[in-house]
Amino acid sequence: MAALPASSTNPALVLHAINTLTIEDRPIPPLPSEKHVLLQISHTGICGSDIHYWQRGRIGPFTLSGPLILGHESSGTVQRCGTQVRTLQPGDRVAIEPGVPCRRCDHCRAGAYNLCAECVFAATPPCDGTLARYYVTDAAFCYRVPAHVDMEEAALVEPVAVAVQVCKTAGSVAGKSVCVFGCGPIGLLCQAVARAFGASRVVGVDVSRARLDFAREFAGSEVLAPPQPEKEGLEPVERSEIVAEMMKEELRLGEGADVVLECTGAEPCIQTGVFIAKKGGTFVQVGMGKENVMFPITAACIKALNIKGSIRYTTGVYPTAIDLVASGKVPVKRLVTDRFKFEEAEQAFELVKAAKEGVFKVVIEGVQN
Amino acid sequence: MAALPASSTNPALVLHAINTLTIEDRPIPPLPSEKHVLLQISHTGICGSDIHYWQRGRIGPFTLSGPLILGHESSGTVQRCGTQVRTLQPGDRVAIEPGVPCRRCDHCRAGAYNLCAECVFAATPPCDGTLARYYVTDAAFCYRVPAHVDMEEAALVEPVAVAVQVCKTAGSVAGKSVCVFGCGPIGLLCQAVARAFGASRVVGVDVSRARLDFAREFAGSEVLAPPQPEKEGLEPVERSEIVAEMMKEELRLGEGADVVLECTGAEPCIQTGVFIAKKGGTFVQVGMGKENVMFPITAACIKALNIKGSIRYTTGVYPTAIDLVASGKVPVKRLVTDRFKFEEAEQAFELVKAAKEGVFKVVIEGVQN
Amino acid sequence: MAALPASSTNPALVLHAINTLTIEDRPIPPLPSEKHVLLQISHTGICGSDIHYWQRGRIGPFTLSGPLILGHESSGTVQRCGTQVRTLQPGDRVAIEPGVPCRRCDHCRAGAYNLCAECVFAATPPCDGTLARYYVTDAAFCYRVPAHVDMEEAALVEPVAVAVQVCKTAGSVAGKSVCVFGCGPIGLLCQAVARAFGASRVVGVDVSRARLDFAREFAGSEVLAPPQPEKEGLEPVERSEIVAEMMKEELRLGEGADVVLECTGAEPCIQTGVFIAKKGGTFVQVGMGKENVMFPITAACIKALNIKGSIRYTTGVYPTAIDLVASGKVPVKRLVTDRFKFEEAEQAFELVKAAKEGVFKVVIEGVQN
Amino acid sequence: MAALPASSTNPALVLHAINTLTIEDRPIPPLPSEKHVLLQISHTGICGSDIHYWQRGRIGPFTLSGPLILGHESSGTVQRCGTQVRTLQPGDRVAIEPGVPCRRCDHCRAGAYNLCAECVFAATPPCDGTLARYYVTDAAFCYRVPAHVDMEEAALVEPVAVAVQVCKTAGSVAGKSVCVFGCGPIGLLCQAVARAFGASRVVGVDVSRARLDFAREFAGSEVLAPPQPEKEGLEPVERSEIVAEMMKEELRLGEGADVVLECTGAEPCIQTGVFIAKKGGTFVQVGMGKENVMFPITAACIKALNIKGSIRYTTGVYPTAIDLVASGKVPVKRLVTDRFKFEEAEQAFELVKAAKEGVFKVVIEGVQN
Repeated sequence: MAALPASSTNPALVLHAINTLTIEDRPIPPLPSEKHVLLQISHTGICGSDIHYWQRGRIGPFTLSGPLILGHESSGTVQRCGTQVRTLQPGDRVAIEPGVPCRRCDHCRAGAYNLCAECVFAATPPCDGTLARYYVTDAAFCYRVPAHVDMEEAALVEPVAVAVQVCKTAGSVAGKSVCVFGCGPIGLLCQAVARAFGASRVVGVDVSRARLDFAREFAGSEVLAPPQPEKEGLEPVERSEIVAEMMKEELRLGEGADVVLECTGAEPCIQTGVFIAKKGGTFVQVGMGKENVMFPITAACIKALNIKGSIRYTTGVYPTAIDLVASGKVPVKRLVTDRFKFEEAEQAFELVKAAKEGVFKVVIEGVQN
Repeated sequence: MAALPASSTNPALVLHAINTLTIEDRPIPPLPSEKHVLLQISHTGICGSDIHYWQRGRIGPFTLSGPLILGHESSGTVQRCGTQVRTLQPGDRVAIEPGVPCRRCDHCRAGAYNLCAECVFAATPPCDGTLARYYVTDAAFCYRVPAHVDMEEAALVEPVAVAVQVCKTAGSVAGKSVCVFGCGPIGLLCQAVARAFGASRVVGVDVSRARLDFAREFAGSEVLAPPQPEKEGLEPVERSEIVAEMMKEELRLGEGADVVLECTGAEPCIQTGVFIAKKGGTFVQVGMGKENVMFPITAACIKALNIKGSIRYTTGVYPTAIDLVASGKVPVKRLVTDRFKFEEAEQAFELVKAAKEGVFKVVIEGVQN
Repeated sequence: MAALPASSTNPALVLHAINTLTIEDRPIPPLPSEKHVLLQISHTGICGSDIHYWQRGRIGPFTLSGPLILGHESSGTVQRCGTQVRTLQPGDRVAIEPGVPCRRCDHCRAGAYNLCAECVFAATPPCDGTLARYYVTDAAFCYRVPAHVDMEEAALVEPVAVAVQVCKTAGSVAGKSVCVFGCGPIGLLCQAVARAFGASRVVGVDVSRARLDFAREFAGSEVLAPPQPEKEGLEPVERSEIVAEMMKEELRLGEGADVVLECTGAEPCIQTGVFIAKKGGTFVQVGMGKENVMFPITAACIKALNIKGSIRYTTGVYPTAIDLVASGKVPVKRLVTDRFKFEEAEQAFELVKAAKEGVFKVVIEGVQN
Repeated sequence: MAALPASSTNPALVLHAINTLTIEDRPIPPLPSEKHVLLQISHTGICGSDIHYWQRGRIGPFTLSGPLILGHESSGTVQRCGTQVRTLQPGDRVAIEPGVPCRRCDHCRAGAYNLCAECVFAATPPCDGTLARYYVTDAAFCYRVPAHVDMEEAALVEPVAVAVQVCKTAGSVAGKSVCVFGCGPIGLLCQAVARAFGASRVVGVDVSRARLDFAREFAGSEVLAPPQPEKEGLEPVERSEIVAEMMKEELRLGEGADVVLECTGAEPCIQTGVFIAKKGGTFVQVGMGKENVMFPITAACIKALNIKGSIRYTTGVYPTAIDLVASGKVPVKRLVTDRFKFEEAEQAFELVKAAKEGVFKVVIEGVQN
């Protein structure tokens, strides 16, 4: 199968050390197996984790140990296929699932490949990411998108997939009340996916009025800023409990929310989320902030909560995410507030780092031929 | 159906205020419905919650608001049956499930009657408990025990039921490694039930060597005292993480335990439990200590743990607990270290309060006719 | 709380024997408990089971043993409340869940009250139904509907609830392909609910082109009439297998449907449904026809199918069904093809019995004051 | 890593056509990848499927299309390891999981590798089996056994794994009543595993009194031969229903069994199994007989049964099976009634084919050096 014409250079956005990004030419990576494909990257969204590595050099156990190409929310066009690739051909437009698991460990064998310790995950040290002209990956983790889905949307299938995994982790949300803490990109997408999966009520919570307004429009959410208790001098957890009671009251949530999706990682939100969940309800931790937080464990125990962490994605999630984008149920394009050329990548990173209220999703276009 | 001869007095152990227990005569309670039965109490185990009310006057939202008869781990003999009772007759020897739910709220309708807010639960304010000559309850929550199960064992079906609920909350433990923090009565019973339900490995953890020795003998557990990290000056959570790593190493647990049952409520145990659970594993909070603890939420999230609280019991748990006692799989009688006459009840309470290493379960005999 | 003025007569549609319906005056039923309410029936949909009792006198173990008021898909207005009713007051407009379970058997205690053998279910011998001026039931099984939901829609919450239960029985349908056999009312509602719960594909199957066209419009379904294999003289099951293969091909279903909802009860549909389900997929039997059918058990076993039966409804289903109607996601009113006055009830029954292609849902209005 | 000394011949039991078995020398298979190992086969149990291929040439879609080495219940000793094998070394004694899945299809990615269509499964056309001196497989599917487990037991881990998968498919059996149809090897092992996993009651059903006696002894089962209804001239399904009622009565099963494991594939047993399951219960089809059976679908639907097929095994099943054998909970050796030398393999097959009452498991020893 003839490859499309391709450039001989491979500009890449490389993180050399904390706060040190450069664009430099890298060798075009060879296909490591006959089941791999070479992709030309089309669009890449910037994610909080990219900013984390750039600013702090590590996330949990993953530490920058050498130059690292950043980026993992990408779409691309197939340039070259290994001889055993049956599902793709050059020219195919694909959304890229950024992690290729080992397929052999117990987690992979059990279907939980999101937990694979050997996963080759884009832009997770020491594995390079997608912010380059070219990227090589296993064909099985490239998903063709329908003609009417553009490549920017295809790149943003990645955060939609995160939200799909979150809702799957929560169990069925159909007919349930779902309270989502955080109206940034992941929180908004969780709201939209919960809505698409039949949640009877979706509530978005954020401190920013602008973000709440956008949540109402984007995902049809009821929205609420956490109220301020009148009483002062409260212990933090006690305060969170009172905030939760005020929110239940204002939202007429009765005994509480069936499902809480905590997308901020902020300590008060985690606490409030536990208190706002109904007895027997489900709380999913999505956001990551402080490693350890003061947690109302007795309340969680007495209420027989189901508390889960959601990480990455598992089988079937990418196809579902593409379907949600393609059907218009999750209008992911409306999240994009800012677009940059590849050469302006560092400006894009600076913009995300600034965390302004009106900035949702920032996308970097691929290297132009 | 003729009632058995019954005494006309009803001595009861009444908590009047914190630290103020008296034995006094109470009226024999009437049957509130034709589906209720009058029981003569035979044996009653003392539970940590009895001590809590006695010493502190409250547990969570439940606060002592008037004189309260204590006791809820009891067996009894049927004295009188309402006219619509079909399943019992006077003379029947029964284990008593101490909570009678409302049967009408959403939790009850959904089968989660352990979460019923209207539950009449023995010795939970304002509902009187079982430490009296007589107790009245719904016949549907009295379970006949086989002839070879004695009345002391029948009383101790209650903590066995707690452990059965814990193991059910954990999902199937069959073929899994189960790490139980705490070798007091509930921890020991969780170990024995996990063993009976087919766990491939059961590990008991405690700081007391005597309790660990007993766990090995009682439940066939592997046992381990939490090791001491050499390094000093560690932050508490960091220390817990290192302890967990040392334990995994010593136990050859590989990536960690499939299931953690945390029966102490102690902050370091909760933290260590989260760290010792394997990715995708299950952690059940059973013990209650501090209301809020410093919790490694990011670790829980990245590992995609399933964290649950277990409380009380649901349908089918009491029959299973009776079966485990009757079949000898859970030799609950071996937990009983001390026995007291009804008149000596306060001494029994003092003994439990002292929390000596060699004291497991303390039982108070019923009022003698 | 004062009752609304009420008529002193209670006309009722009574089935005396097979094929023998009369309208006659019945005493206004008293409230059997202080938690019951007296309702004035507003609208009643006719269901296949009503026709069954009328034409054959029995369904499964339930046999007509005396005069029986028919009807169970109803809405009504509260006329009188027992003194312990806290959730309703006279004048409230409600959808009526037609079965009131015993709340005491093991099924009820476990949350599966749809399996309660003591359930008082409207129009199931020997319990009278709702086709009368008045009906008495437990307040806990009456659900207020929002002002913009009219009483005809409120009556039809019942079949929507059946479909919600079916989709819950199937587990989460979000992101899955769902193939529904049958485009009668229940099949159509299952399609609409599966769509509302996030199914990625919904396929309606029926032999009637008119019904398929309606399914496409009503539920946005892809539709398909079972194709005819060219080969003749096939064994019935073999034929069903070939039909399934042809359908998979035509629908590009790949290995098969994730979920099959069999709403016809017809033997060839059951067989085709098993063959069209993918390995590891889920098949829910909803329709009831012949008691015993030739079933491809080896195929079901090798494919590790999950085969379930769905019957009635459980907790939370009615509120979800009302929400689906109120939000417009399930436009149940569009199912109503024919309406009759109470006095014309037998004509309505005749129309449903005729089973014409263009007749979907037939509704009988309540007795006029 | 040096290989153990190995013979240069590779005698194999080859099925050439229906009823035509020969022992012939085959080339020693090369390692197809560096993650494979060469094993010397030690013991092999004969399974019904081996007999099937020998006598009929096919099972379901799998048809003999060329010479096939039979055998898949085997243990072996590692002879040679690929360079990337980290978990084994020459001399290791292993139980062999006979299927190596593709690891890439959706079923594999989802953890259901038992459903992989590309699985290389021993003695399933066109993949050769283990009845030879040597066998090559992926190291990841070889499990070291403890020193006190002998190689005959290690071979029989395979049918134990089948039974473990069946019990996992049934969901948790802990505290439940389990009724197993069939007291052949798989039925017996299902009984023993259900017992080990905490079933409160295990009932073995068979027409053979000798097999029932053995079941009682082997697995501690209650046992029952299906009773004969007095009434004659019954329709077969009607008869099965009456038999089920008689069995419930005799066993005092109340409403029925929580779990039915159908290990015969016989039509009357399948029917009786559906009728003996309680409402909301679980029925697992394990045995395979006629492809299609007359099935009480309406009863299954009204009872809201969960009907599942179990096939092969998934992750974690082999380790659990080894643990059950090693701990003595499943005394698999007691199933072995007859042993043959490799050269006598055809006699062994004849013996299994004869299906005598007293023959449970027949084992063929490996080729002697």
